[in-house]
Amino acid sequence: MNSKDSKLIEKLMSEHRRGSLTLVVLTLLTESHYGYALIHRMQEAGLTLSQDTVYPLLRRLEQQELLESEWIVDESRPRKYYKTSSLGRSILGQLQSEWLEYTDIIRGIIA
Amino acid sequence: MNSKDSKLIEKLMSEHRRGSLTLVVLTLLTESHYGYALIHRMQEAGLTLSQDTVYPLLRRLEQQELLESEWIVDESRPRKYYKTSSLGRSILGQLQSEWLEYTDIIRGIIA
Repeated sequence: MNSKDSKLIEKLMSEHRRGSLTLVVLTLLTESHYGYALIHRMQEAGLTLSQDTVYPLLRRLEQQELLESEWIVDESRPRKYYKTSSLGRSILGQLQSEWLEYTDIIRGIIA
Repeated sequence: MNSKDSKLIEKLMSEHRRGSLTLVVLTLLTESHYGYALIHRMQEAGLTLSQDTVYPLLRRLEQQELLESEWIVDESRPRKYYKTSSLGRSILGQLQSEWLEYTDIIRGIIA
């Protein structure tokens, strides 16, 4: 495995990761978290992601009305908390089933 | 589930599908196929994809030297056969392991 191959694998995997990330975020944000706490929660689960990846995604999902946010100012510093909206929750079950069904098909092909 | 929700799910899932498709194509083309036969082979496995999705991907993967192609002209009509290149085969095992590892993490989060 040379470094050109490693870069190619990283590129191909990053496409795949991006596609699953919405599902992860909507799932984890059924409990309210601020951005950095969400990143920490993902890391505990095995997903290491940078703020540069997660923060734009949170803003995009909020624009799509899949997340809602609120500033909490009674802590040491103001923090924006995000939570899966009612629209987000309404599609989450379906998204999870489709994701599981699709990955089972791929697993069948590559195994 | 209204039609706006369905469209949103379709959009989110299509991102996810796109990210896994390279892996599927490199795996299936370890045996040589022409484009339409590959689409048929995917359909048998449970993945319904249009020519508009698959043909540009085949061209892109060939440009990235992950596939190689050859015209076979001794059938009723000339057909371009694609096959995973030696570069493609060299990264395939690693790509499959990373895909499986990553989807296991997501499965752990959403289950």
